[in-house]
Amino acid sequence: MSQLSQASCEVCRVGAPKVSEAEAQELLSQLPQWSIVTYQGGNQSSSQDSDQSSDQGIQQLQRQFKFKNFVTAMAFANQLTEIAEAAGHHPGILVEWGKVTVTWWSHSIKGLHRNDFIMAAKTDELLPA
Amino acid sequence: MSQLSQASCEVCRVGAPKVSEAEAQELLSQLPQWSIVTYQGGNQSSSQDSDQSSDQGIQQLQRQFKFKNFVTAMAFANQLTEIAEAAGHHPGILVEWGKVTVTWWSHSIKGLHRNDFIMAAKTDELLPA
Repeated sequence: MSQLSQASCEVCRVGAPKVSEAEAQELLSQLPQWSIVTYQGGNQSSSQDSDQSSDQGIQQLQRQFKFKNFVTAMAFANQLTEIAEAAGHHPGILVEWGKVTVTWWSHSIKGLHRNDFIMAAKTDELLPA
Repeated sequence: MSQLSQASCEVCRVGAPKVSEAEAQELLSQLPQWSIVTYQGGNQSSSQDSDQSSDQGIQQLQRQFKFKNFVTAMAFANQLTEIAEAAGHHPGILVEWGKVTVTWWSHSIKGLHRNDFIMAAKTDELLPA
């Protein structure tokens, strides 16, 4: 069990500091399965793309988890919902057949807060050891 | 209740016909909340992008549903899982705080089959009238 996963999220409001590049790299070193990605504004092209552009350029923490089918992938999403509710901090969860892509970022600061790395560590601990 | 939502999915294997452009437009006219989008290969830029490129250029049927929080969004995702399991056909479900983006397409033919429009109609009927 990692130290990071034992930490608690602090309240993160508009104006709270994003992690610095150095902090991000140090925290990421504790989360070898995760990547920092930059949101590009939707994974589809459509004439009806609407409210996604405001998220463009936001840094997010992302990992893909593999499962044996859709139902087990959804079961993981439900477990993740429980820890997200408990922490009052919620990810993006993309469930597809046999895989779940989890994305953490802090909406209020449009980027990565230490909380996101804590939640990523807690997400990893949902898996059987 | 729409006629489309009452139809059953047929078996869709590699080599089954994609819907024609005319069929797609006719079916889409029965699904006013849905859009046909083209998968662009991931909504994030990352040096670790892996298996998404094979899906690039695939046409998909997509709708975003709004909810009052994360838990109600996830409850909808669980309802959708039940009808997906019953039909043996599974969508992509992106759950975020207060919204769910549902994407239907047929993996085996890398595009849209009539089944996807049927499943979109069934998805709409999960909502309270």
